[in-house]
Amino acid sequence: MDIKDKSLKELETLSQEIRDRIIDVVSRKGGHFSSTLGAVELTLGMHYVFDAYSDPFIFDVSHQCYPHKLLTGRWEEFETVRQFGGLSGFTKPKESPADYFVAGHSSTSISLAVGAAKAIELKKENRVPIVMIGDGSMTAGMVYEALNELGDLKLPVVIILNDNEMSIAKPIGAISKYLSKLLAGKYYQGFKAKVDKFIKKNMPEGTTYIAKRMEEAMKLITPGILFEEMGIDYIGPIDGHDIAEIIDTLQIAKAMGKPVIVHARTVKGKGYKIAEGQHEHWHGVGPFNVEDGAFVKKEAPKAATAVFADALCELAQKYENIVGVTAAMPSGTGINKLIDKYPNRFWDVAIAEQHAVTSMAAMAKEGFKPYITIYSTFLQRGFDQIIHDVCLMNLPVVFAMDRAGIVGNDGETHQGAFDISYLRFIPNMILFAPRDDKTLELGLEFAYTLNSPSAIRYPRGAFKQLSYPSTQFELGKAELLKEGTSNKLFIGYGAGVTRAIDTEILHEDDITILDLRFVKPIDKEMLINLSKKYDTWYIFSDSQKQGGVSSAILEVLNEEKIFNIEIISFEYEDSFIEHGDTKDVEKHLQILPEQLIKKIK
Amino acid sequence: MDIKDKSLKELETLSQEIRDRIIDVVSRKGGHFSSTLGAVELTLGMHYVFDAYSDPFIFDVSHQCYPHKLLTGRWEEFETVRQFGGLSGFTKPKESPADYFVAGHSSTSISLAVGAAKAIELKKENRVPIVMIGDGSMTAGMVYEALNELGDLKLPVVIILNDNEMSIAKPIGAISKYLSKLLAGKYYQGFKAKVDKFIKKNMPEGTTYIAKRMEEAMKLITPGILFEEMGIDYIGPIDGHDIAEIIDTLQIAKAMGKPVIVHARTVKGKGYKIAEGQHEHWHGVGPFNVEDGAFVKKEAPKAATAVFADALCELAQKYENIVGVTAAMPSGTGINKLIDKYPNRFWDVAIAEQHAVTSMAAMAKEGFKPYITIYSTFLQRGFDQIIHDVCLMNLPVVFAMDRAGIVGNDGETHQGAFDISYLRFIPNMILFAPRDDKTLELGLEFAYTLNSPSAIRYPRGAFKQLSYPSTQFELGKAELLKEGTSNKLFIGYGAGVTRAIDTEILHEDDITILDLRFVKPIDKEMLINLSKKYDTWYIFSDSQKQGGVSSAILEVLNEEKIFNIEIISFEYEDSFIEHGDTKDVEKHLQILPEQLIKKIK
Repeated sequence: MDIKDKSLKELETLSQEIRDRIIDVVSRKGGHFSSTLGAVELTLGMHYVFDAYSDPFIFDVSHQCYPHKLLTGRWEEFETVRQFGGLSGFTKPKESPADYFVAGHSSTSISLAVGAAKAIELKKENRVPIVMIGDGSMTAGMVYEALNELGDLKLPVVIILNDNEMSIAKPIGAISKYLSKLLAGKYYQGFKAKVDKFIKKNMPEGTTYIAKRMEEAMKLITPGILFEEMGIDYIGPIDGHDIAEIIDTLQIAKAMGKPVIVHARTVKGKGYKIAEGQHEHWHGVGPFNVEDGAFVKKEAPKAATAVFADALCELAQKYENIVGVTAAMPSGTGINKLIDKYPNRFWDVAIAEQHAVTSMAAMAKEGFKPYITIYSTFLQRGFDQIIHDVCLMNLPVVFAMDRAGIVGNDGETHQGAFDISYLRFIPNMILFAPRDDKTLELGLEFAYTLNSPSAIRYPRGAFKQLSYPSTQFELGKAELLKEGTSNKLFIGYGAGVTRAIDTEILHEDDITILDLRFVKPIDKEMLINLSKKYDTWYIFSDSQKQGGVSSAILEVLNEEKIFNIEIISFEYEDSFIEHGDTKDVEKHLQILPEQLIKKIK
Repeated sequence: MDIKDKSLKELETLSQEIRDRIIDVVSRKGGHFSSTLGAVELTLGMHYVFDAYSDPFIFDVSHQCYPHKLLTGRWEEFETVRQFGGLSGFTKPKESPADYFVAGHSSTSISLAVGAAKAIELKKENRVPIVMIGDGSMTAGMVYEALNELGDLKLPVVIILNDNEMSIAKPIGAISKYLSKLLAGKYYQGFKAKVDKFIKKNMPEGTTYIAKRMEEAMKLITPGILFEEMGIDYIGPIDGHDIAEIIDTLQIAKAMGKPVIVHARTVKGKGYKIAEGQHEHWHGVGPFNVEDGAFVKKEAPKAATAVFADALCELAQKYENIVGVTAAMPSGTGINKLIDKYPNRFWDVAIAEQHAVTSMAAMAKEGFKPYITIYSTFLQRGFDQIIHDVCLMNLPVVFAMDRAGIVGNDGETHQGAFDISYLRFIPNMILFAPRDDKTLELGLEFAYTLNSPSAIRYPRGAFKQLSYPSTQFELGKAELLKEGTSNKLFIGYGAGVTRAIDTEILHEDDITILDLRFVKPIDKEMLINLSKKYDTWYIFSDSQKQGGVSSAILEVLNEEKIFNIEIISFEYEDSFIEHGDTKDVEKHLQILPEQLIKKIK
């Protein structure tokens, strides 16, 4: 940690080396890019003023943490970022003691800082939590909850607000400085004196309150009013690429001994001209050519996300009461297409999953058919709202859950493993899944016909194209794809159907394959019939085993008093699943068809 | 709906009649009291200016909805409020078309209003959503998420902020009015002119921005700044018991055609002197004597909540690194005792479950042992944080879940039915339950020794005192309470153990009883052994069947290839459970021992 001895010149050189390293590795391997490039100088400032091995360094969402990783002993290893067995793309305590917490979901940072600050106070230590949070993360309600308590307790926490939205007009810095001086001038003082006099004369008991409000009123002239109003000091905006200014400001903030927000303006993609100021396009990228910024083209089949977006577009044209929402994932979920085409019917409500779910519940009550398009893992944020506002009211909201199953390089914070387990027990909920592109299209249209809440899940990447003809969904009906001669039965759900088919092909026996289609309501009649013919059932589904698909089948068999059926589930075991290319991760989990066939034999 | 034709005098008489009715019924039957008394005039104003059968009337949490029920055809029926088969204590569309949504969890109202307003705009209708929300509900992040979008879209929504906290100094109303005038005066105008001149001269491109900020700055002098900052107009504060002022203001607000907050000051318990201004004590009450406000004393055994609080107090004295938090339920969870005694180690973070969970995760990382004391149903709000911030980091946070199982009169929004199902599949989580007071005490101490997250559940009301000696918890170990001679096995979990024991007594056979103690990790060894002796297993647990205790047992038996065991679960079936006295509800669900024994036979 010799960074503290470096001169400003040396720090500037270091920042260039960090950028070069990030551009080099990410251009070859892919990864988060523009936000991490924009955070280089701020991260250097954090390390200059604070100590990552003592002060809690808390990166919100932590997709901007690459400079931090490079500064904390992971320069060489950075080559392996996001690869299986390599460095995580997010902060991860198992990887380094400099990483305080895992963070892949947004807006947890200030709550963590509050907890850390409470602990530090109790332990009478001299450490100070330092947070870096992007403006995009500020929309989630969780941040507001945390600021509320922080402003109340006044514990020392420094929060760098990394603002790269360019939504605030440029001249603000200068004007802010001028206005601060102006407040000491005669016109304002005259105004204030008049108020004071009135208060003292008419209502002496209110003096302190009014004085406080007046002071607050004047702070409004800086952009930090929302924070000041919550009892948190505000400094800024500063230039988030000026190392000297950053260090000076952080030193002041650290010395204040109370909660303070340092508002830093940065440019996303800073240092790589082609990406500078570009938002979604350069946020997370695959390999690209450094010279011209051209992405390395891969021949890839159409992703399920794109199939979903096209199908929903067609449905939205056909049915005017279809509406929809996403929470800050317009291109990730493909719903940007619909927002562009139908701006009055489709919305991006920013990172606000709770609000997304409940506001759509009201639209359903009003006769609309809302499609909430969201990643399986992020829907966890709207869990209580699904129960209390959607299912209890039995409203026909459709949860279109993208990234169900293993998501690959984002890893353990993002895996879509839990949705079946956390939705299956909720009364009124219908759970179903398509096995390929065509059944995804059919599924979305089927969802439109329902008068109850439903959730449809589909994977990251592309479905495999299957040769089985596609049939319409019928509520609670499974589909027998193939009848075989063996005593074994393969049951697939969603993308698991492909795995069942691929495994069956490798087996010498001729095995029956069922596409379960619905986990809830489950096709009891079909299962009862199949129990008479097959006694060993294998379950293929990209989901957690506990409470998942096999659990649902066990419940039915027990209820129907069908014994002597052995269920072998190839769902995920009880642990968080690491990052890496999906194939590598699946191999590690031993769920590739060639691995499964060995287990079966 | 002849209310619109009434004179002010008649409305005042009506408000007295409503109060009398509420005091009469609640004093005899119990129910929510002080907040509903405080909302009488505001509710009359809503009905005078808006139409509950057309405009969406949205009551946040809706424990203040009694006047609304009385005004919408439920005067006589109000006698049955919160009783089984009677009126719900909350709004409920099944009960009346005047009830727009179910609401028992806090802070959903503004999201619902946003959804309704979007729908109304698309349908080109002239309805206006009207919200009543208490200041206590304003702390949840969900409100902030909703206000953000509402301020952005500028859809017409009227929000009555029912402020009964008396946290704002009394003279504010008058000063606010005076200051509004003052802003037009010469000192302020001189100040503003000087700023304008500077801006125009030095940075003409910033003029509009600065003008806007200046305007906003001056609005700060009213208490509505937080809303104005979010793009929502603010009127107030007004006297929330002055019907004429309420009607005038609501008419203005309705006509504005954009989002507006009407800040109304009210007194909790208004009209019943003994309760006026009293907060928690008169919020929800049992029967009381109207003359002197004395609660009708019932001989009641010590509630599990009190056992918990006393036990945690002792533990906190013994172990200095125990800390704890509640989300706005200090007396409901009994943690008020600890907050009083250890104000630096126990906190009420207000309605902010997400923040509660994540901030405690950080404290656990710092070496503390946090106890999060919360109702089973409200923990749903912190679901993603449990997965992402606690379990993924494998931190020893203890979730002490009160009100697990049927909670009685609060009904379907509050039943603690789901916690096992929504926690069991999360990696690293330990789930266990005590069967009585003594094992609750032991369980809390056992939780302290764990190095992983754990959740312990206990019911509303008192545990039954059992005669079985209490033994220490051992991780993953069940306890055989009684070995019988029949082929049947009763497995109880938590308060379900009592039900198992009470049912066994009624049976002529001598039946073996197991206290499962842990749903996760489950005692496989014990279950394997018992499978050799008993072939019909009955599961007693106050929890949802899907994904619950019986599901966990089925998973083990299947994994261990143990067939021919019939599992009969007496957990809750797949529906939301209605309100009523717990005994009545359990009778309806047919899970009273005398009903179960018939089923078993």
